[in-house]
Amino acid sequence: MKRLTSKQEYENYIIIIGCGRLGANLANTLSDGGGNVLIIDKNKDSFRKLSPSFGGLSIIGDATDIDVMQEAQIGNASAVIAVTNNDNANIMVAQIAREIFHIKRVIARLYDPEREYVYHEFGIETICPAVLSAKEVDKILSQDDAIKGEEQ
Amino acid sequence: MKRLTSKQEYENYIIIIGCGRLGANLANTLSDGGGNVLIIDKNKDSFRKLSPSFGGLSIIGDATDIDVMQEAQIGNASAVIAVTNNDNANIMVAQIAREIFHIKRVIARLYDPEREYVYHEFGIETICPAVLSAKEVDKILSQDDAIKGEEQ
Repeated sequence: MKRLTSKQEYENYIIIIGCGRLGANLANTLSDGGGNVLIIDKNKDSFRKLSPSFGGLSIIGDATDIDVMQEAQIGNASAVIAVTNNDNANIMVAQIAREIFHIKRVIARLYDPEREYVYHEFGIETICPAVLSAKEVDKILSQDDAIKGEEQ
Repeated sequence: MKRLTSKQEYENYIIIIGCGRLGANLANTLSDGGGNVLIIDKNKDSFRKLSPSFGGLSIIGDATDIDVMQEAQIGNASAVIAVTNNDNANIMVAQIAREIFHIKRVIARLYDPEREYVYHEFGIETICPAVLSAKEVDKILSQDDAIKGEEQ
């Protein structure tokens, strides 16, 4: 594995856990935007979703395992983003990042918005795809003034 | 099934296909906001996600079946929103709504952003949870000016 070496490279060092559609999308975007991105996934095949131009690093491993997190040099991360498909894994990884490694900026995806309070208790920011999508639909519908009028 | 009867009730008549987290969330929100909402799902148990105060209608059925769409009086809908967990089902339902019933406002969720062009060709608006979530993470990270500075 290529390793981050200089102090310089730790600036804007972002660790992403989970290389699903969201993780890969984020890794590509943040890497293109100049971030030093490291992405972790249990499944090697997941990394196929990364774009060919992805300039970051990857580790195959289970991020709920602290050894894997140490290999990722999590202590140097400016942000940790937990976006596996499993809410429990995301909260566990986010808590490790926050409580053990004192990472200031920790973001986790959660599918179940009812768990949000658990995350916020630990100072973890959350993104919930269903809530974001519902807001977007609402925005699209409210942009269209014609809807209410067209049946009249 | 309770039926929509008067002309009045067809104003802002919104049909939602798929009562997953997003569908249920949308149904609750749009119904609370005064919309006449009808939600369709193949699985009766899905409707448990609706809030007890949900004031709309529901149909158990497969919305890719035109008979089900006719039962839903789709011709009177001001908007059709296809948010099942299956991209293929969503595009099929959205196309039926658009091409056969000429619904002006058709929105579909798609998990795979690469299929977006297919939808847009048919005048169907799309929402992609991974893209929305990636944008949100980007927003959270860019709000935090401290990140880039904290390692310096």
